[in-house]
Amino acid sequence: MIFSAAEYSDRLRRVRDRMQTQGLSALLVADPANIYYLTGYNAWSFYTPQVLFVPREGEMIFFARQMDADGAFRTTWLPAENIYGYPERYIHRPYIHPFDWVMFKLRELGLTVPASEGHVGLEMDAHFFSPKAYRAIVNAVPEWSLVDCFELVNWVRVVKSSAEIQHMRQAGMVCSEAMNAAIDNVRVGMRQCDLAAKISAAQISGTPEFGGDYPAIVPMIPTGVEADTPHLTWNSKPFESGQAVVLELSGAFERYHTPLARTVSLGKPSAELDRVSKATDEALNAVIDVTQAGVPVNELARTWNWTLAKHGLEKPSRIGYSIGIGYPPDWGERTVSLRSEDETVLEENMTFHLIGGMWMDGFGYELSEPIRVTESGIEAFTSFPRHLICKEG
Amino acid sequence: MIFSAAEYSDRLRRVRDRMQTQGLSALLVADPANIYYLTGYNAWSFYTPQVLFVPREGEMIFFARQMDADGAFRTTWLPAENIYGYPERYIHRPYIHPFDWVMFKLRELGLTVPASEGHVGLEMDAHFFSPKAYRAIVNAVPEWSLVDCFELVNWVRVVKSSAEIQHMRQAGMVCSEAMNAAIDNVRVGMRQCDLAAKISAAQISGTPEFGGDYPAIVPMIPTGVEADTPHLTWNSKPFESGQAVVLELSGAFERYHTPLARTVSLGKPSAELDRVSKATDEALNAVIDVTQAGVPVNELARTWNWTLAKHGLEKPSRIGYSIGIGYPPDWGERTVSLRSEDETVLEENMTFHLIGGMWMDGFGYELSEPIRVTESGIEAFTSFPRHLICKEG
Repeated sequence: MIFSAAEYSDRLRRVRDRMQTQGLSALLVADPANIYYLTGYNAWSFYTPQVLFVPREGEMIFFARQMDADGAFRTTWLPAENIYGYPERYIHRPYIHPFDWVMFKLRELGLTVPASEGHVGLEMDAHFFSPKAYRAIVNAVPEWSLVDCFELVNWVRVVKSSAEIQHMRQAGMVCSEAMNAAIDNVRVGMRQCDLAAKISAAQISGTPEFGGDYPAIVPMIPTGVEADTPHLTWNSKPFESGQAVVLELSGAFERYHTPLARTVSLGKPSAELDRVSKATDEALNAVIDVTQAGVPVNELARTWNWTLAKHGLEKPSRIGYSIGIGYPPDWGERTVSLRSEDETVLEENMTFHLIGGMWMDGFGYELSEPIRVTESGIEAFTSFPRHLICKEG
Repeated sequence: MIFSAAEYSDRLRRVRDRMQTQGLSALLVADPANIYYLTGYNAWSFYTPQVLFVPREGEMIFFARQMDADGAFRTTWLPAENIYGYPERYIHRPYIHPFDWVMFKLRELGLTVPASEGHVGLEMDAHFFSPKAYRAIVNAVPEWSLVDCFELVNWVRVVKSSAEIQHMRQAGMVCSEAMNAAIDNVRVGMRQCDLAAKISAAQISGTPEFGGDYPAIVPMIPTGVEADTPHLTWNSKPFESGQAVVLELSGAFERYHTPLARTVSLGKPSAELDRVSKATDEALNAVIDVTQAGVPVNELARTWNWTLAKHGLEKPSRIGYSIGIGYPPDWGERTVSLRSEDETVLEENMTFHLIGGMWMDGFGYELSEPIRVTESGIEAFTSFPRHLICKEG
C-alpha cells in the first residue's frame, strides 16, 4: 500500500461526509485519479470503462475489464472479492456496453436497492465517463435517481495529507531534474524533438533514489512565434538564435504532480519579451507574497491582474489551479481555479500550480511555481530563480 | 497542411456519405483523433471540451477554448472564420458548460435549423465527450433529434490512403528505434524506470531524418511475475536475472501509430515461458499467413484459437485491432477488433496491431506486429524476428 490504511480510511470517511451533505446514497467514481485516491488502483487501463461503486455504508466495489481486474490486486488494497471483471466481449461493441454488465452485477449483489433510497451521484464531467456509459446506467437501473456529484471526490482531494505532501516533494525533485535537463540542453541547432526526449527521459528516470512516474501531459516546449499558442508540443525543427523557448513540464511521483514552467531566451531577448517577462515575474511574485491560509482565491487573481495592469498587460485566463494526483490528459484536479470568480478561501496544505502564461502576438512567456499553502505563506516544491533565463544564442 | 487538400476533401466526402446512409443532417465530432483526421487540428488541448460541427452541406465549424482557438491556425487548414473560441469563464464551472456557449453560437449562426431537418449524430462513446457535455447539447437544442453516430468517423478511418500508409511506415521506423533502444539496454541491475526513460527518449527523438511524436500510451514493460497483468507501466525496481520483460511500445509520427511488442528473457527462460512463447509465435505467424484482403476477420481469430488450442492454450481477448491516428489514452481506432464475433472482411490498406498477449500465472509473454493488409498478404511496419529474445541473465 502506498498510503496507510488509516489514510485510506480517512479519505473514504471524508467522501462519505460529503455524500451525506449532498444527499447521496451511493457514488459511482469513474475518474482514474479518484479511483487511485480511494483504492490505490493504478494501471493504464482507463481507456476502457471502469468504475468504483461507493455505497453510503458497506464496502466499495471496483469494476474493470476482466484482464485488468485479474491484476488489480497488484496495486489496490481492495480485497479480491470486491473486484469484478466484466467479460472481454463487452469491449468496443456498438450495441452493448460494459456498464450493462456492471449494473446487472450490482443488482445481483443486492446493492441497487439500498442505493435507490437516496440519490446516486455520477461524475458527469469526468474524463473517461462517456454519454454511452451514462445511458447504460440510466437504462439498467431506471429506479435510481441519478444526480451530478459535482466533482465530489476531487473536492475531497483539495487539502493534502502529510503523506501526500511528501509525495509532492518527491515529484518536485523529479521536476527539478527534468527542468535542469531542459535548461542545460536547450541550444541553437538542437531539434525540438531531441530536447523533448531529454526532458522525458529525465522525468521517467527521476532521481537516483526513486524513479519518476509518467506525467499526465507530455513536455510542452512552444518556441519562437509558435509560443504565442499554448498546448503545442514539439516538432523536428532546430532551435534558432533569438528564439524564446517556453518549457512547461511536470515531475510525477506515484501519480502526484508538480508542474513547472520557465522560459529560455536563446540570445538577447527582444525588448518586448524583456518587458513582458519582467511584468510577469513581478506579478507572479506578488501573487506568491499574498498567498497564505485564510486568503480568498480571488485576492490572488486581483493581485495578479492589478500588477499586470500597472504594466499595461492583461491575461484573461486563470493563473493557477489545484494539483495533486493526475492521469492523462490533465494534471489539474478540476476544482479550485485561481481566478476572480472562484470563491474558495485558501487552506493549509492546499497545493497549486501558480502559472503566469502570457501568449502574446508572435511570442510567449511562461513562469510558474508548484506550491503548498502554509499558515504563513507558501512552500515551493522547486527552487528555480523566477525570471527569464538567457542562454547563448 | 500535413495531407493534401484533395485528401481532406475526400475524407469529408466519405464522412458525408456515411452521414447520408445513417440519416444524419449533422455530426458533432469530439474525439481528438477524428478532429485531427478531418481538419489537421493538433494540440494537447483535448482535456477541455472541443467539438467539430460537420453539417451535411456547408463548411465545418470548430469550437475550442479561446486560448486554443486563437492558435488553431497553426495546425488546421480550416479558415479562421470557421473557428470559434468559447470564453475562459466556461472552464471547470459546476453550473455552466462550454457547450452551452457552443450550441448558442451554432444557433446564432443559423446552423441549428438545417441540422434539425434530420438526426444529429453524436460520438456517444468517445473519450473526452462527457455526459455533462451531452446534456448541455440536449438542453441547448431541444429540437434536435440526437442519435449515436456509432464511431462514424472512426469507421471512415479504417482504410488508409497512400499518404497515411507512408505516415505509418515512418511511425514504424520510429518504433524500430524505440524497440532497439529497449532490447539493447535492458539488462540485469538496471532500474525499470531507467529503461522506460531510454525507450521514451528514442520514441520522441525518432530518426535523424524526422522526429517522433508522443505515443498515445507510455512504454509498458511488465516484468517477471507482474507480467501476468497487462497495462502496468514501470517502477523503480532493478531487473533481476531470470525475469522475462515484456516490451510493449509504439512509434508515432504525426499522430500515426505502429505499436509493437516483444519479450526479452534475462537468462535462460523457464520451461513454461519457452512453451508458451513458442505456441504464441506459431499462432501469430499462422494468423499472419492467412491475413490478406478478402478474408473475414473471424478467420484470423479462428486460426489463432485453433493454433493455440493445439498447444493446450487459450486467450479470450481479441488478438488485434485497427490502428492509425491515436491520442492518449489509446492508440486503437475503436472499430475493427480481431475476434470471433467481428464481422468485418479485410480490405487492402486496413492496418492492424496483431497482438498475441499471454498473461499467465506468474509470467507473461507478448509478441505482436503492426501490419498493413495487402492484396496478397501483409506488409509489416517493423522487421524484428518473431520470437522470444534471450539476453544474458
